[in-house]
Amino acid sequence: MAAGLAQVLPPEGLTVAVNTGDDFEHLGLSICPDLDSVMYTLAGRHNHELGWGQQGETWRCMQALEALGGESWFRLGDLDLATHLHRSARLRQGALLSQVTAELCASFGVLHRVVPMSDRPVRTRIVTDEGELPFQDYFVRRRCAPRFIRARFEGADQSAPSPGFLAALQDPALRAIVVCPSNPLLSIAPLLCLPGIDAAVRARRVPAVAVSPIVGGAAVKGPLAKMLQELGEEVSPLGIARRYAGLIDGLVIDDADAALAPAIEALGLAVQVAPSMMTTPQRQRALAEAVLGLARRLS
Amino acid sequence: MAAGLAQVLPPEGLTVAVNTGDDFEHLGLSICPDLDSVMYTLAGRHNHELGWGQQGETWRCMQALEALGGESWFRLGDLDLATHLHRSARLRQGALLSQVTAELCASFGVLHRVVPMSDRPVRTRIVTDEGELPFQDYFVRRRCAPRFIRARFEGADQSAPSPGFLAALQDPALRAIVVCPSNPLLSIAPLLCLPGIDAAVRARRVPAVAVSPIVGGAAVKGPLAKMLQELGEEVSPLGIARRYAGLIDGLVIDDADAALAPAIEALGLAVQVAPSMMTTPQRQRALAEAVLGLARRLS
Repeated sequence: MAAGLAQVLPPEGLTVAVNTGDDFEHLGLSICPDLDSVMYTLAGRHNHELGWGQQGETWRCMQALEALGGESWFRLGDLDLATHLHRSARLRQGALLSQVTAELCASFGVLHRVVPMSDRPVRTRIVTDEGELPFQDYFVRRRCAPRFIRARFEGADQSAPSPGFLAALQDPALRAIVVCPSNPLLSIAPLLCLPGIDAAVRARRVPAVAVSPIVGGAAVKGPLAKMLQELGEEVSPLGIARRYAGLIDGLVIDDADAALAPAIEALGLAVQVAPSMMTTPQRQRALAEAVLGLARRLS
Repeated sequence: MAAGLAQVLPPEGLTVAVNTGDDFEHLGLSICPDLDSVMYTLAGRHNHELGWGQQGETWRCMQALEALGGESWFRLGDLDLATHLHRSARLRQGALLSQVTAELCASFGVLHRVVPMSDRPVRTRIVTDEGELPFQDYFVRRRCAPRFIRARFEGADQSAPSPGFLAALQDPALRAIVVCPSNPLLSIAPLLCLPGIDAAVRARRVPAVAVSPIVGGAAVKGPLAKMLQELGEEVSPLGIARRYAGLIDGLVIDDADAALAPAIEALGLAVQVAPSMMTTPQRQRALAEAVLGLARRLS
């Protein structure tokens, strides 16, 4: 979605605020999976085969680490390692995550602003039927097998939104807030848990528009459908609309879900039906235009 | 030299005590250059072209790190990185360097005992005409350009020899102490600075035999010749013999230096002349046999 918006909007016209609840320390490295995914994607280096990481990635270090009996459940590519090593070094030097993110983005040639949701550590923990797990343990090591009960965003209440995130929300030039088709429970909820953000979004003077991460009864990506089922919630854009009620003014849903538009509109939300499987750059762009079109319509 | 001795002696017959004064923390990694060199060499994986690191090394991560403007003055290969990442992780878990070294050696198939000189941090610092430098800054970053005044082994006095180093010296089965043709000022001196080691070597009941690291007026490897010149010392096996006086009973010198034998013997040292440029495994083995032969002669 960020890549689509970046095609349509000029660099100064887009700020992407990114979840850092998935961040963790592994093998002494500060790893920020969502920031890296956004950064690599906007840099045109996203690894489409893997669905994460960089194009042309290799695994020399990882293979050697495995041979040594080292921790290899979290796959670290040779190129990716450079990002983690450099970020970790800069953070140890006292640089803020916002600053390091800006530096990395500049090195990768990313022109649009990418900001971490916070410069302070917020760590997502998943309460499951097998107990509470750190996010990456649940997500990567256990492949989301345990039953999801709820997520907890450790540190969020003592945290603060990053200056860039706050500045974007408070910018007089702000025209719309777009909630990307990410996992509402894991990737959007942490941003809303930061002090002041939920309130700021609810007090918005510009339209907030979300894109449904559920298309035709399945998640666009990741474990969302399974999680919603485990919560007893409806796995459909209507379920998403109920979750986001009060926070958004409009929802973009896929053609496959067009029949749900009246039920969503009955919740007081505007609906835009548009192809939302972003399988090509052209489709990314078209969806971004649909999202911005809906926002304009609601202004 | 260790590789030669390992060809001749059974696994239980050799303990290699290794300098850790060159160890340092870089990019958050605990790097032990000498331990790794010994380990890779005994594993048959030493990179002969580079003179350090592993065979078949690649530089994917390093190139990516350079592109990010990260620290790249210390070259970290993709395979080498795995060693550093794993060692660092184990040390953070509370394992001692001795233990981690034993684990790494086992993973690499090294059968002979390799022990760090100490489990506690000792950090070599070089006093130069441009001020005092951390070892790797002097050695790698500055390529030994500043004039060497003296080395200081920070932490040595509050340190202790590793259990394996001490056990080897106190082993009733000990037959000889071999001082390898390493740099006496940088690689041997740190071991002798550890509490009790210099005294233990001086009180030895078995012969101590060194191999001259100077052959034909030049160092076998590294900056030793330049350093000795800067100290105003003789760049020859005689200079080495004077340095080691009291600590050793015999010195192996190269054929090229045979004429110096009488002067060295005049210092009270036995001399063995033998080809000491170990350019092939056969030459490594032959030199090891000459060293052990001299030790046997002195028993």
